[in-house]
Amino acid sequence: MLRVGFYQFRPLFGKVERNRRKVVEALSQVEADLIVLPELPFTGYHFAGRTELEELAEDLSNSPTLWTLGELCARKNFYLVTGFAEKSGKDIFNSALLIGPDGLIHVYRKIHLFDREKEMFTPGNTPLTVQEVRGTKIGMMVCFDWIFPEVVRTLALQGAQVICHPSNLVLSYCQQAMLTRCLENNVFAITANRFGADRRPHGTLRFTGKSQVVAPRGKLIYQAPSQREELFLAEIDPQQANEKFITPRNHILEDRRPEFYRPLCR
Amino acid sequence: MLRVGFYQFRPLFGKVERNRRKVVEALSQVEADLIVLPELPFTGYHFAGRTELEELAEDLSNSPTLWTLGELCARKNFYLVTGFAEKSGKDIFNSALLIGPDGLIHVYRKIHLFDREKEMFTPGNTPLTVQEVRGTKIGMMVCFDWIFPEVVRTLALQGAQVICHPSNLVLSYCQQAMLTRCLENNVFAITANRFGADRRPHGTLRFTGKSQVVAPRGKLIYQAPSQREELFLAEIDPQQANEKFITPRNHILEDRRPEFYRPLCR
Repeated sequence: MLRVGFYQFRPLFGKVERNRRKVVEALSQVEADLIVLPELPFTGYHFAGRTELEELAEDLSNSPTLWTLGELCARKNFYLVTGFAEKSGKDIFNSALLIGPDGLIHVYRKIHLFDREKEMFTPGNTPLTVQEVRGTKIGMMVCFDWIFPEVVRTLALQGAQVICHPSNLVLSYCQQAMLTRCLENNVFAITANRFGADRRPHGTLRFTGKSQVVAPRGKLIYQAPSQREELFLAEIDPQQANEKFITPRNHILEDRRPEFYRPLCR
Repeated sequence: MLRVGFYQFRPLFGKVERNRRKVVEALSQVEADLIVLPELPFTGYHFAGRTELEELAEDLSNSPTLWTLGELCARKNFYLVTGFAEKSGKDIFNSALLIGPDGLIHVYRKIHLFDREKEMFTPGNTPLTVQEVRGTKIGMMVCFDWIFPEVVRTLALQGAQVICHPSNLVLSYCQQAMLTRCLENNVFAITANRFGADRRPHGTLRFTGKSQVVAPRGKLIYQAPSQREELFLAEIDPQQANEKFITPRNHILEDRRPEFYRPLCR
């Protein structure tokens, strides 16, 4: 059994230190194995442009945010998956970090950028892989990756049991679609969304909350309200994700006929 | 504009001639461009075994069902996509036929067999391709193919605007998942299901009805009741399926990153 969940909150744009403090305060209260935070929860999301993003992004080799979260994971003995604005040389990636009690374990760089992110971030350049957390295989993706069924599928084919999904959702489609992702792949998914708005001189972006935990067969375990802070945790049995037979004769992964799917990979 | 829809009815097991008559009578009343019928609507579904299936299946080179439907399409000047138990040499395929005013246009053989079908049918051996009906590109799949996101994706990547989906659904998941298929690919889908039950000495199978037409963005145009005969038709604009931008910067097909999806095709 694994105690997993999300922290849905309202980051304040550009207030990196305040947002870190907010996360540390909330997460210091709980016992858990794995907690997922939203996309870009420390910087905020609605950057005026590349220059502003550059000022707020951090290099992992010198990142106060990573130090703070590493310390938190060590002290609380849990794992975090969190969004992170990652500076790397001349690039900035919209990344997700997996951090554990012993520090940084994996960096996933969002491969499908959304809307204006394309003008500021570099598209992810690292493969979709699976990491192990207390014997459970987890896969990571970020926000808009959800609309591409190829992402969860690629993770599930590598054995992912729990999809960790930091998000800053502005459209209304994702939560329902994630039920389908969990049905078609028979995995768990934790979508951690933010709420509130980034009100900036160049415009306002509103985020839709409704963070959720979904079980195999697309069963919704819990969905948070749209506009309220919430730290939700549930005990799940990751083994449930190993039962890929939807009928006694139908294994939803082994029944695939890849020879007919060639157009997907060119 | 294209006038499309489905005929949801209750085939009687083994009563091929009665089922054909039923379809001809219903469809003789309507004006349409394209109508989708359920999976295996003439033979029924719940075969005792291979021998019984062999007796009911037909060879396309000598098929009274094809003659009847070809005559119907010619007389009514419309196109049909229908399930069909297709005998071909030693094989029997769970097929879908596209028939038009000038006769048979395409045969799709179900590539993902469901449950006991595996004991009786040969898995499909023809690629997923797209056909043209009055200037609209249609893709065909049969029932359980829905659970594999690769199927609609493969069709959409070839330009399919309308997915025609003959079905004999017994599980409750498909209708909701098809909204996601139409969202993630921005296509129309017509799922034609049967209702009623096949009550046989070896057991009873109940079918769930709720045939539906879904528009791009996953918008439900109409869903039939669970247990009632219904012939539904709607005017659709297939061009809607060409608008693949979900934001001004995000084309849901061109934004794909196939270099990261390699596990899907091996």
